[in-house]
Amino acid sequence: MKIYDIPGFPNPLRIRIVLAEKQLASQVEFVKVDLPAAEHKQAAFLKINPTGTVPVLELDDGTRIAECTAITEYLDNLDGDPILTGKTARDKGVIHMMQKRAESELIDPVGIYFHHATAGLGDALREYKHPQWTARAEWGKLQGEKAVAGMRYFDSVLEAQPYVAGDAFSMADITVWAGLLFAHFARIDVPDDCNALRAWKERVDGRASVVNPA
Amino acid sequence: MKIYDIPGFPNPLRIRIVLAEKQLASQVEFVKVDLPAAEHKQAAFLKINPTGTVPVLELDDGTRIAECTAITEYLDNLDGDPILTGKTARDKGVIHMMQKRAESELIDPVGIYFHHATAGLGDALREYKHPQWTARAEWGKLQGEKAVAGMRYFDSVLEAQPYVAGDAFSMADITVWAGLLFAHFARIDVPDDCNALRAWKERVDGRASVVNPA
Repeated sequence: MKIYDIPGFPNPLRIRIVLAEKQLASQVEFVKVDLPAAEHKQAAFLKINPTGTVPVLELDDGTRIAECTAITEYLDNLDGDPILTGKTARDKGVIHMMQKRAESELIDPVGIYFHHATAGLGDALREYKHPQWTARAEWGKLQGEKAVAGMRYFDSVLEAQPYVAGDAFSMADITVWAGLLFAHFARIDVPDDCNALRAWKERVDGRASVVNPA
Repeated sequence: MKIYDIPGFPNPLRIRIVLAEKQLASQVEFVKVDLPAAEHKQAAFLKINPTGTVPVLELDDGTRIAECTAITEYLDNLDGDPILTGKTARDKGVIHMMQKRAESELIDPVGIYFHHATAGLGDALREYKHPQWTARAEWGKLQGEKAVAGMRYFDSVLEAQPYVAGDAFSMADITVWAGLLFAHFARIDVPDDCNALRAWKERVDGRASVVNPA
């Protein structure tokens, strides 16, 4: 398998943590995509992923799978023993709900804030982010506020249960963790009183797959 | 099981088609949520779904599952024989990728166009859609353009294969179909030259679950 990504970035890290959880890292060859140079928005990469995002998983038969949730579904089900996406119908449903919320309420708004309300990844990428649109910064700031509301939501969830989707660590924890990493990089602070979220983050920070991702 | 939704709306229809595909309609009691009155943004409903969207599935044990992909995962895996979300790791990965694209490239931008660049569902809901934000209409129009680009993308996919995620009908087809329904309602036209997309839509229009959803 090949993975097109860039080390250290939030969404690529989600999959590198999945690879460590599934002990699949040695089976993957990584191909670096230069995001600050906007390589992922050029014709050559758009043939690999028409939506212009990383990471992308390429199977040995040439099949390409983009989107972190989809890549996680593939990797987690490869050995017939899913540990991150749920074994029962109920667990699959709840984990996918929380995964979607981790995206829509946290990591995605952080990304919009970063790319529209700050300098983002710099000049080369800016032309792909509606530079002509005068309300970019205002839109980015609204999304930054949404991300903080998302942190408060996940804090309330983690007051009631040890992990984002219930009693067990799942892909939704990885996504919330990557969302907080991205928020820190974009200088969006976790509210001081989000104690359950902070305690959970400290536990996840110490997890082997997070300490040593692929 | 209970489902909180409103008949005829695009996202609720996605799950009503899933119920028909899985022959589960008779097991569900529907509870109507008055979207034009913004019932889904009030405290009582936010206890059911903090992100304020429909549909929401409520299981007999009280577990609530929001988000169409998550609800579909639950319903499709309930009998241990998934037909809409993939049986193999590869199929699960590809179907989830195309499901995500059907949302991010089509039905979600149509929704943003509808709520920001048109009168949307009217006055009651408007106050939950950043009415103070002066660039709303401009943002909505950019998303309308994104939705048309999404139609062209799915047209190119359907030139090469019979269904959105490959050889078999899947949840991704349901989402693209609902996205086109929503686009039609919002008066975003499918480009004349999207012949593969139009031919596929005609086939899906005639599918039993689409003719007679739950």
